[in-house]
Amino acid sequence: MSKKIIIVGGVAGGATAAARLRRIDETSDIVMFEKGEHISFANCGLPYYIGGTIDDREKLLVQTVEGMSRKFNLDIRNLTEVTAINRNEKTVTVKRVQTGETYTEAYDELILSPGARPIVPLIPGLNEAKQLFTLRNVPDTDQIKAWVDGRNPQKAVVIGGGFIGLEMAENLHDLGIEVTVVEMADQVMASLDYEMASIVHEHIRTKANLILNDGVKSFEHEGSQIQLQSGETLTSDLTILSIGVQPENELAKNAGLAIGDRGGIVVNDYMQTDDPHVYAIGDAVEVKDYNQKTPTMVPLAWPANRQGRIVADTIYGKKTRYKGTLGTSIAKVFDYTAAATGNNEKTLKKLGVPYKAVHVHPASHAGYYPGGSPVSLKMTFDPEDGRIFGVQGVGMDGVDKRIDVLATAIKGGLTVFDLPELELAYAPPYGSAKDPVNMLGYVASHVADGDLTIVHHDEIDQIVADGGFLVDVRDPLEVEMGAIPGSVNIPLDEIRDRISEFPDDQPVYITCQVGLRGYLATRILEQHGKETVNLSGGYKTYACVNN
Amino acid sequence: MSKKIIIVGGVAGGATAAARLRRIDETSDIVMFEKGEHISFANCGLPYYIGGTIDDREKLLVQTVEGMSRKFNLDIRNLTEVTAINRNEKTVTVKRVQTGETYTEAYDELILSPGARPIVPLIPGLNEAKQLFTLRNVPDTDQIKAWVDGRNPQKAVVIGGGFIGLEMAENLHDLGIEVTVVEMADQVMASLDYEMASIVHEHIRTKANLILNDGVKSFEHEGSQIQLQSGETLTSDLTILSIGVQPENELAKNAGLAIGDRGGIVVNDYMQTDDPHVYAIGDAVEVKDYNQKTPTMVPLAWPANRQGRIVADTIYGKKTRYKGTLGTSIAKVFDYTAAATGNNEKTLKKLGVPYKAVHVHPASHAGYYPGGSPVSLKMTFDPEDGRIFGVQGVGMDGVDKRIDVLATAIKGGLTVFDLPELELAYAPPYGSAKDPVNMLGYVASHVADGDLTIVHHDEIDQIVADGGFLVDVRDPLEVEMGAIPGSVNIPLDEIRDRISEFPDDQPVYITCQVGLRGYLATRILEQHGKETVNLSGGYKTYACVNN
Ligand SMILES: Cc1cc2nc3c(=O)[nH]c(=O)nc-3n(C[C@H](O)[C@H](O)[C@H](O)COP(=O)(O)OP(=O)(O)OC[C@H]3O[C@@H](n4cnc5c(N)ncnc54)[C@H](O)[C@@H]3O)c2cc1C
Ligand SMILES: Cc1cc2nc3c(=O)[nH]c(=O)nc-3n(C[C@H](O)[C@H](O)[C@H](O)COP(=O)(O)OP(=O)(O)OC[C@H]3O[C@@H](n4cnc5c(N)ncnc54)[C@H](O)[C@@H]3O)c2cc1C
Ligand SMILES: CC(C)(COP(=O)(O)OP(=O)(O)OC[C@H]1O[C@@H](n2cnc3c(N)ncnc32)[C@H](O)[C@@H]1OP(=O)(O)O)[C@@H](O)C(=O)NCCC(=O)NCCS
Ligand SMILES: CC(C)(COP(=O)(O)OP(=O)(O)OC[C@H]1O[C@@H](n2cnc3c(N)ncnc32)[C@H](O)[C@@H]1OP(=O)(O)O)[C@@H](O)C(=O)NCCC(=O)NCCS
Repeated sequence: MSKKIIIVGGVAGGATAAARLRRIDETSDIVMFEKGEHISFANCGLPYYIGGTIDDREKLLVQTVEGMSRKFNLDIRNLTEVTAINRNEKTVTVKRVQTGETYTEAYDELILSPGARPIVPLIPGLNEAKQLFTLRNVPDTDQIKAWVDGRNPQKAVVIGGGFIGLEMAENLHDLGIEVTVVEMADQVMASLDYEMASIVHEHIRTKANLILNDGVKSFEHEGSQIQLQSGETLTSDLTILSIGVQPENELAKNAGLAIGDRGGIVVNDYMQTDDPHVYAIGDAVEVKDYNQKTPTMVPLAWPANRQGRIVADTIYGKKTRYKGTLGTSIAKVFDYTAAATGNNEKTLKKLGVPYKAVHVHPASHAGYYPGGSPVSLKMTFDPEDGRIFGVQGVGMDGVDKRIDVLATAIKGGLTVFDLPELELAYAPPYGSAKDPVNMLGYVASHVADGDLTIVHHDEIDQIVADGGFLVDVRDPLEVEMGAIPGSVNIPLDEIRDRISEFPDDQPVYITCQVGLRGYLATRILEQHGKETVNLSGGYKTYACVNN
Repeated sequence: MSKKIIIVGGVAGGATAAARLRRIDETSDIVMFEKGEHISFANCGLPYYIGGTIDDREKLLVQTVEGMSRKFNLDIRNLTEVTAINRNEKTVTVKRVQTGETYTEAYDELILSPGARPIVPLIPGLNEAKQLFTLRNVPDTDQIKAWVDGRNPQKAVVIGGGFIGLEMAENLHDLGIEVTVVEMADQVMASLDYEMASIVHEHIRTKANLILNDGVKSFEHEGSQIQLQSGETLTSDLTILSIGVQPENELAKNAGLAIGDRGGIVVNDYMQTDDPHVYAIGDAVEVKDYNQKTPTMVPLAWPANRQGRIVADTIYGKKTRYKGTLGTSIAKVFDYTAAATGNNEKTLKKLGVPYKAVHVHPASHAGYYPGGSPVSLKMTFDPEDGRIFGVQGVGMDGVDKRIDVLATAIKGGLTVFDLPELELAYAPPYGSAKDPVNMLGYVASHVADGDLTIVHHDEIDQIVADGGFLVDVRDPLEVEMGAIPGSVNIPLDEIRDRISEFPDDQPVYITCQVGLRGYLATRILEQHGKETVNLSGGYKTYACVNN
């Protein structure tokens, strides 16, 4: 059963595949090509080394060429680029990066894990910009770190508000640099919907400058000035360009393998390209969305690692299906955590999938125990059967836990109706007797069942403008600190005594702080014959966007 | 549909049922009796108020009688004890605690949520002990707090190593008091198996004195001396008795309702006793183990809250089944977290259920990012189909998250084979590209599939004594710091060159630090024709127990 297997790319997907291949078969001939110097490094740690949170460069090198070769008896050839796949001969052409020397190497099975590279658009002045960097690997990191250490930059500009951009913003801020983040879209972190991203925006602005809806027009003065499309000019001593990544698909494309619309290598459920002896994994491939089964790209480490393992199993006859990617993702953004799993509202809209969405803001742990803070959660789900499509979470504490629980719930095929039944660990430092996930389930169940009608933050102003009756059931003191224009204040506790103040001939729209008291009000009013509509997430969700 | 509903007990289960009943029906007549002064208080916060972590007594009072009465339009009668259920008349007899006055009150439906009280055994000298306290409610808390503030105790003894005892130990330690914990069993925290509890023991001993396998024989000198069964004598300025709770079943028992072997009120899946108009919930009832369907008692807040909600729904015709209790539990024990869900090994043994168990000790987050620490996890599962029976976790960080994920996996019906597929949120501060839960799944899958044979910490010494060949595949430096007696050191990287040193005529037992390298060694050796057995959890699990 011994085979000659060639792997292109020696980091997340490639190194994982190599290790697993060896565990399955001691006798295979496994050659791993890596065009860079380093294999198996911690891509995800790079920003934190630049910022000094990770103090030792060695820690980034999870495995060395020698160490991994010995441990797994591998033929690892770093600084060697695979330049062509010769499918008919079942060989690859490779080039020694340092000497330019080329040769071919034969394979029985070929695994491509070449990753994705930072997108670098054609912006005037970009090539002349001296202090402009992208971040993908250890040499990039060394360059940025050397610039930071040697040039003592005062002002940095991060172009792109994705997770790598925001991690860089945080790390540069940690170094005492004044950071400006420029993002073309109206929000950072595409995994979040706008109102959830807005919570992140508010926090970023306490630490850095955030410019949304604007892009770079040109780099001037060797990059020390950045001209934005809006006309604004930024000065920059250090610029990070992180507007996304594109799959390294050239090898596959040139070999005539199918490439998807967004550039990802097309593979089947076994990570096999249209050539049965060529597999592709990781950032370079197009995957299936776990819920919707539509093609998508998710350049993250979990899929790369999982696919690396699966491909090794499949090559050795233990066929394992990759069932698609949920896209669970997370980022630390200064003191906040923003995370998501599954489909957000934007995606569902784009795909034309019917959905409902709810918002809650429960405390990360029991209110009476110190140190808690709100966990803002938004869930999308199928209005027909309550199937969970996706969840987003933003907060200072406990967000990762809830997103992981919900990612697990989705993989377990649980619906919103099952979430109240999750028996999660409760003691005051960790949660509540009804965990935020339980609460999310209760609220969504009501909406799915039709017991609760809701309206969203982006609809309520128009409703009021059109003459809708909006009642705010918070206490007057809370209302004073900010309320939705046009709302009438009738505190929850007074509703039963003031029923006559609510109209009979039109729906009663209700808001409170987070939605809970609004829901309690709907229960009372409905039983007094009123038609009610609650504002999802209450004033808190509204204020995220409107403040 | 309006009904007259009486609730006995106004805290976790009772108050939740009352709130939900009102949400369903504005017109019901809801009377909630509570023999104490306070309703809806934070039982779980009491130890932390004593220790000063919760600074304000008001915070313990989640709802007041007036506040809750108004908000939910309830008839709340505190300081009023229900003394009898007159099932034929459908009335209860109640007594005003302060005046002794009694009267009856009629019901259509009756909900019992009387809770459980601390067990107080007949120990000589107990009644004379001045500084001896149990902890259940606000008055108990006030008493302990007054003693702490007024008497300035130097030494405290906590009798019982359950979660309340350990929380008290931590909180008294936080006040600068020297604490001794006395536990009759060989371990604290019954939810854990011995080797997992041993990790907790080691940590407790850095903060307090821990006496295991010993009980109190008598209290002497008005309780200031405690005579243990071993002969040892402890002096104590403050003693907390927390050896468990017993269900408040007298009302039900006297009314002729069925009581289970352990004293819990027997209910069906709708929390209905054998009288269809009498429901019982919370600490007072016997529940079904979620996995094994056997009767059990789980006096925790999540079940009480969930059952309170369910019973209200059921009474109003929205019949909702309570599907059993997993027993998910968690406690902060000084700097550690100990948590569990489902069935541990002890329980499975007792029930005679066939199972397998595995141990892992992965890092709470990526090793290269600072602040991580091991998450020790033990999982039990069905060797036939891989169904997860239970998981225990101990560590300084990230334990709650993994237990919640696994509790969700169990409720989703996932098997050990599904755990590697959980797509959990990864960025360096939060986890690893292969999360501890994924790892647990990989390891258990191998064991379930028969690809990996394991042996446990409590078997290996005997195996070596019987002439078994045990190889330690760690590096010599690690071995120097402690190893299993009788093991031979052959580092992982040298195995391929030293194959001849491994026997062919007997199994090769393998140990490393946590089990991972041992597994890698099994892969190499098996393919060289050796029979291998790996030590589950490696030297780390062994050392928990043997150090
Ligand atoms: C700064 C940064 C932070 C990140 N943070 C996170 C995070 O927090 N969480 C997360 O989930 N993901 C994160 N990621 C993404 C994650 O690192 C990738 O998803 C993952 O590494 C993809 O694995 P891969 O094997 O597909 O590609 P890579 O790990 O990028 O490996 C591909 C390798 O192939 C080599 N290669 C390409 N073409 C050739 C060729 N022709 N011949 C030879 N070698 C070739 C490349 O040099 C590269 O080293 C981060 C990435 C970066 C850059
Ligand atoms: C110190 C402490 C810490 C805890 N920590 C945790 C934790 O971290 N996590 C967790 O999950 N659980 C914890 N618990 C357990 C949790 O509080 C209980 O499981 C939960 O409160 C049970 O709810 P219940 O409604 O059954 O009983 P309770 O909440 O105890 O309420 C019962 C009420 O009924 C009243 N009552 C009894 N009989 C009568 C009668 N005849 N007439 C009128 N009133 C009556 C009692 O006075 C009592 O107030 C803790 C408990 C304590 C004491
Ligand atoms: C380091 C690297 C080569 C490791 O690959 P790997 O050997 O597959 O992964 P791990 O070291 O995590 O080990 C996993 C294996 O050990 C086994 N294992 C883990 N813990 C175990 C334990 N306690 N007992 C027994 N077996 C254990 C698992 O079952 C798995 O083996 P399997 O795949 O044969 O089932 C690869 O992940 C890598 O290069 N990572 C760095 C790059 C990267 O991922 N970047 C993105 C994130 S920064
Ligand atoms: C305080 C207490 C009376 C609350 O009972 P409750 O009203 O059922 O619980 P909550 O306040 O958490 O509210 C839950 C309700 O609000 C709804 N809700 C929560 N957040 C919401 C939101 N953002 N939007 C709309 N509805 C929301 C839920 O759906 C649920 O209603 P439902 O049961 O009708 O579906 C009760 O839990 C109690 O007494 N607790 C203290 C005692 C205790 O539990 N001790 C043990 C732990 S220390």
